[in-house]
Amino acid sequence: MAVTEQLASAYRLLAGDTFDTRCPSRPIMDQVTTRWGTLIISALITGPHRFSALHQKIGGISQKMLSQNLKVLVRNGLVDRQVEPTVPPQVTYSLTALGESLAEPLCAMLIWFGAHSDELIEAQERHDATADPA
Amino acid sequence: MAVTEQLASAYRLLAGDTFDTRCPSRPIMDQVTTRWGTLIISALITGPHRFSALHQKIGGISQKMLSQNLKVLVRNGLVDRQVEPTVPPQVTYSLTALGESLAEPLCAMLIWFGAHSDELIEAQERHDATADPA
Repeated sequence: MAVTEQLASAYRLLAGDTFDTRCPSRPIMDQVTTRWGTLIISALITGPHRFSALHQKIGGISQKMLSQNLKVLVRNGLVDRQVEPTVPPQVTYSLTALGESLAEPLCAMLIWFGAHSDELIEAQERHDATADPA
Repeated sequence: MAVTEQLASAYRLLAGDTFDTRCPSRPIMDQVTTRWGTLIISALITGPHRFSALHQKIGGISQKMLSQNLKVLVRNGLVDRQVEPTVPPQVTYSLTALGESLAEPLCAMLIWFGAHSDELIEAQERHDATADPA
């Protein structure tokens, strides 16, 4: 199958060490682009959120997973955590400029999965119907 | 921080159930967009590869992990597996049209991490230097 020109040019833009086990951003990519990391960054596109608002917005995430993933995103400079000294303290999360720039490719990925979920599920069903049970 | 117009419009394109726990593509995204899934799809952009060539190209992946991830990608219709009836049989993997279309956003994400790895690592170092040890 011919490689499309657009893909070929994207491929040429990959960093030289993309496929190298020493590529420094590999472990960060692993931590950040989990299902939850992707959904948290996408949820914050619309603006700052309190912890409870994020928890309510992202269906299925536990408070513990939300807290853990926010810590990773804060540590990597993608999300900013602001504590207002009220009683009880109110904590607000927002995207940093770095986080906003990552939101674009992550959002593109989410949009792709949303647009192609039927095709993916049909492919699974076709595969499972014809697969060798061994 | 103001939401950029580009991000806001990306956000509007997200499927209505993106944040819903019942979103059907969520488990597939989890399986496909692992570190290894992303690197395998990106490696296949340049054309079909034998198993051994993929294993050599993607630094650090074990044969077992490569095999497991290829099975997931084949099952979801993203990668095609062709077996030539030679002795021993030669197995070639290539992107399907669906896989090629996913390669674009995945490649954009890899490019982003390659371009911003210094900023991410600096943010980690700043965070760890000032973080409350508790």
